[in-house]
Amino acid sequence: MKAGIQTTGKPVQLEHVKITDEFWSDYVKLVREVVIPYQYETLHDRVPGVEPSHAIRNFRIAAGEEQGEFYGFVFQDSDVAKWLEAVGYSLAVHPDPGLEKRADEVIDLVVRAQQPDGYLNTFFTVKEPGKRWTNLTDCHELYCAGHMMEAAAAYYRATGKRKLLDAMCRFADHIAEVFGTGEGQLPGYDGHQEIELALVKLYQATGVEKYLKLAQYFIDQRGAEPSFLTEEWKKRGGLGHWSPVPSKNPPNLSYHQAHQPVREQETAVGHAVRAVYMYTAMADLAAYTGDESLFGACRRLWDNIVHKQMYITGGIGSTHHGEAFTFDYDLPNDTVYAETCASIGLIFFASRMLRLEARSEYADVLERALYNTVIAGMARDGRHFFYVNPLEVWPKASRGNPGKHHVKPVRPGWFSCACCPPNVARLLSSLGEYLFTVKEKTLFVHLYMGGEAEVELDGGMTAQLRMASSLPWQGKVSLEVTPVSADNFTLALRLPAWCSAPQVTVNGETVDVGACVRDGYAYVERVWSPGDRVELDLPMLPQLVRSHPQLRANAGRVAIQRGPLVYAVEEVDNGGGPLSSLVIRKDAPMEARFDAALLGGAVVIEGPAVLEEESGWSGGLYSASEKKGVPVKFKAIPYYLWGNRGEGEMAVWLRE
Amino acid sequence: MKAGIQTTGKPVQLEHVKITDEFWSDYVKLVREVVIPYQYETLHDRVPGVEPSHAIRNFRIAAGEEQGEFYGFVFQDSDVAKWLEAVGYSLAVHPDPGLEKRADEVIDLVVRAQQPDGYLNTFFTVKEPGKRWTNLTDCHELYCAGHMMEAAAAYYRATGKRKLLDAMCRFADHIAEVFGTGEGQLPGYDGHQEIELALVKLYQATGVEKYLKLAQYFIDQRGAEPSFLTEEWKKRGGLGHWSPVPSKNPPNLSYHQAHQPVREQETAVGHAVRAVYMYTAMADLAAYTGDESLFGACRRLWDNIVHKQMYITGGIGSTHHGEAFTFDYDLPNDTVYAETCASIGLIFFASRMLRLEARSEYADVLERALYNTVIAGMARDGRHFFYVNPLEVWPKASRGNPGKHHVKPVRPGWFSCACCPPNVARLLSSLGEYLFTVKEKTLFVHLYMGGEAEVELDGGMTAQLRMASSLPWQGKVSLEVTPVSADNFTLALRLPAWCSAPQVTVNGETVDVGACVRDGYAYVERVWSPGDRVELDLPMLPQLVRSHPQLRANAGRVAIQRGPLVYAVEEVDNGGGPLSSLVIRKDAPMEARFDAALLGGAVVIEGPAVLEEESGWSGGLYSASEKKGVPVKFKAIPYYLWGNRGEGEMAVWLRE
Repeated sequence: MKAGIQTTGKPVQLEHVKITDEFWSDYVKLVREVVIPYQYETLHDRVPGVEPSHAIRNFRIAAGEEQGEFYGFVFQDSDVAKWLEAVGYSLAVHPDPGLEKRADEVIDLVVRAQQPDGYLNTFFTVKEPGKRWTNLTDCHELYCAGHMMEAAAAYYRATGKRKLLDAMCRFADHIAEVFGTGEGQLPGYDGHQEIELALVKLYQATGVEKYLKLAQYFIDQRGAEPSFLTEEWKKRGGLGHWSPVPSKNPPNLSYHQAHQPVREQETAVGHAVRAVYMYTAMADLAAYTGDESLFGACRRLWDNIVHKQMYITGGIGSTHHGEAFTFDYDLPNDTVYAETCASIGLIFFASRMLRLEARSEYADVLERALYNTVIAGMARDGRHFFYVNPLEVWPKASRGNPGKHHVKPVRPGWFSCACCPPNVARLLSSLGEYLFTVKEKTLFVHLYMGGEAEVELDGGMTAQLRMASSLPWQGKVSLEVTPVSADNFTLALRLPAWCSAPQVTVNGETVDVGACVRDGYAYVERVWSPGDRVELDLPMLPQLVRSHPQLRANAGRVAIQRGPLVYAVEEVDNGGGPLSSLVIRKDAPMEARFDAALLGGAVVIEGPAVLEEESGWSGGLYSASEKKGVPVKFKAIPYYLWGNRGEGEMAVWLRE
Repeated sequence: MKAGIQTTGKPVQLEHVKITDEFWSDYVKLVREVVIPYQYETLHDRVPGVEPSHAIRNFRIAAGEEQGEFYGFVFQDSDVAKWLEAVGYSLAVHPDPGLEKRADEVIDLVVRAQQPDGYLNTFFTVKEPGKRWTNLTDCHELYCAGHMMEAAAAYYRATGKRKLLDAMCRFADHIAEVFGTGEGQLPGYDGHQEIELALVKLYQATGVEKYLKLAQYFIDQRGAEPSFLTEEWKKRGGLGHWSPVPSKNPPNLSYHQAHQPVREQETAVGHAVRAVYMYTAMADLAAYTGDESLFGACRRLWDNIVHKQMYITGGIGSTHHGEAFTFDYDLPNDTVYAETCASIGLIFFASRMLRLEARSEYADVLERALYNTVIAGMARDGRHFFYVNPLEVWPKASRGNPGKHHVKPVRPGWFSCACCPPNVARLLSSLGEYLFTVKEKTLFVHLYMGGEAEVELDGGMTAQLRMASSLPWQGKVSLEVTPVSADNFTLALRLPAWCSAPQVTVNGETVDVGACVRDGYAYVERVWSPGDRVELDLPMLPQLVRSHPQLRANAGRVAIQRGPLVYAVEEVDNGGGPLSSLVIRKDAPMEARFDAALLGGAVVIEGPAVLEEESGWSGGLYSASEKKGVPVKFKAIPYYLWGNRGEGEMAVWLRE
């Protein structure tokens, strides 16, 4: 292990964490009781009114058990994989024999569709049998492989069943033969990164180092000259998957983060999901190999995203053209992409960085993306989803201005390109895994949620932890520590960046936080006795937040934040006029109150503002007239709840 | 003539107006001495570094005088037509035997390329000989015909030469046979309106009513059910001109303003240039036929544009997707299209409305588009042009955000799709025609420019007018009236909307403007004597202008206007930081001063502002920190001059 990389922290795994949090349990339950069954039905084309997925049928046809044509996107298989992965996580914490049986059946089918050499992909098996590995750029072949590997690892961990795991090992073995820089091998990598992080999981599940090395190969090879993606495009005579006409231009390598070797990349570019999936694998590999240059690249790319290319909601990807990053400080609120999946990928990346080094910024960003963009992505019914998470919506513009057609004012149902819903499902059903890491004799607490955990520290120590939290509505957290084998160890408690005056007590006695804080964690070391009680008080006041001056889109504007939650103002609560006529006054305090009637209950924020009333405007389209303002009270709701009360304007950044 | 339409005003034609204005003569001269010769060279593929136009070669190939393939856009012929039209206007006021000879040669070539049945189009003659009139939606066949008709009329008026005029009459006769609702005729119209207004000009030049009726047919047929464009698309099996793959979707009829009969259209929709070309023809026809319903549609569409869909610069078209209108009050400054050609078309429309009724709003808008967007469209060298005229530019975003790739921070050279440059040329070389109209015994003065005119009023009266103007820098205008055959008549002087306290004197005596103003014109009636002198004093102070509250993009922002000129702030004059950090103070006066060193001399406006300095920002990307402002002086230049001093940020709407 080299200098910059700390001894790697390990997550406390899902099966040892039980979430009983008042806020989050609802989501976990929603995923288990609604999303997973609903997705199962959609994969089987049994939901009336929803476009058939055909994903299960594709596997049946590939297995030779049904006649028919492949149908759907080239990456349709991944929907089945993500569902299986979510099921794995769910079973890990909530056994359900019926669900497990259904999953076993799906796995049996998947394995029957696998080819004798280990290859698995229904598109190429059914529709393009001779064209395996000829269009890595467009065809998501390794991407689909990766998702099935993630599913296999999750399902094995939850159930101990090896069937899918073994099948995916055979596939990985096959891939390791096909790809590489050796004689007769393809020196390639996938256009959509995913297999890299999946192979790490396959390694974690099996202990087979070959899979870690294969992940390393894909990461190392990316960006090598001559570009594999360009050479491949030449071999295809310019033909691609998405157009029947040959393209005059070679693939945009930046879009695929293949424009230069990953270790040389300075800024986050291209398709945002691909980027963060890749960075996640890079951080994984840095942890396993101690590779400083890889770690350095992870840090640079992290810094670039979170300090220059991230929305206040934890959204990333400023443009729908290529669902991509643009450039530093370019964060338009209304033409934004900020795909739900990209924020999920950012959470993966953050969690891996947290294992590399315990700096609270990683957890702060993880929390920001989770409490805002990720849960905004799903309606409270578990059946409607946002792919795009805008910070400003004018419904008329979503319909009437083609540059904003991608911005939806309410959550649509299941899409034919169903990437985000199963991604939300697999994240929320594995939520327990993001709370803690253990490093030697230190237990890090990154997220505060009600629940219980059994943790194992170095030297064979184990302890039980019972956590209660009033987040995100209040900042009270308590942890009851019960060492099973008593010894001294350290509890490292994250002090969220949103709290300026955190207080920590142990059994009622105040801890001098200033003296024990390091990189945003309060390190509390003691010989723990059963029933020891740690309490955190994290006062959360409504705050007006401003943006860096280079972030032009937010000049003269403020956002409202309270604790981990970013707030949004909706037309329905604020007079029905253009929200651009509302001016927040900074000279008077805002008030937070719990509104039990609002969409299951939430803290709303109200405060003084001035409304430039339309009736007070005496000019036409343009005029030297001044606008007349009347004092009003604005009302803001948590961003994640926006768009649940019909169509209307919404804005996060408000005039100050 | 029915009730709503006033007796139609007639323009004082180009050949009777000589412009000697200090401001405008430069432009007219630039067009004559640089733009027209430069375009002649580009049409002949003789400008090094500029992509070959091939437009003249296409005609040679079509005439059978050269071997080769058609090259260029399907509407490439129109570049030659627009050049000929500009030459016609230029020759009308500035005879030039050498230029006339070159034009004659081009006309000879064009006529040699005409087919025996009168048909003329090099694309279909050379490249798709069997496919005439099979794709009106995409192929600009009647559009090209229309432009050549406009050229023919202009050239005939200037030179008296009938060769092109006669050829175009033959073409129009052929078109009248092909199109119509009769047996064996095509019940169609062009995807890009233009021939409608051109046929009116052909009628004006020849007096042949058939051409007016053909224009009327095209206007009446548009939007009829079943849609011709859709039926045509079906006949082609979904194939179009722009893609080798059949389209599943029929043409977007709104894009072509063919979604409903023109008389029923309420709002301006679709491709902005097509729209205003069509409205121009509608207004022409309303004037000739007294058709109230057509006039009503013109008024509604005019009102919709200028009160709800027009930028303060007179730009129209809010989106580059389809170069189109979007919807009411959707006027984004940074993703705008505002094509130069569309503002030119708006000027056409305004001038026709002015003939229908003398309301100063038409001239106000005409002036706004002319002094701002149109001349912004051309660099001072006559060789670089803006197609898109944004109101906010961040050069990094033009490169780095695909949604803004169409917004150029400096004027590019001649484009392969060269629609705007020849359009600017034909407008500026016919500028004299937009100054006056005559109605019975009233001479209307719409624009104030230095020059001379000979006008003919009803009853055989004629008068000479000598005008001097200090616009746009100062508001002093004088008119010397010399009646040739003395009688009483009325001078109707436009009182610009930008001036709140206009003063008019006749021979030094103050006219009671309030008593003689009607619809924005001061009507001065008297028996004029040689040497009578009318003076207008139109005080112009720098003004802060605000937008209608529904225009969300400009909330909390002001623009600066002085007289007819809209101002812009450029990075180069304002500290080099983000212009979004600049806040205009409304509590202190602005100053206007003439800066002789600025790009040929212009009045600049300076005033008090606050700059939120980046060095004063203590937070990261987001922070509760407040921004610190320091007092600064801002400097604004006329909008039409922006982008002439290298790349930098520019903004019209500034924080207040």
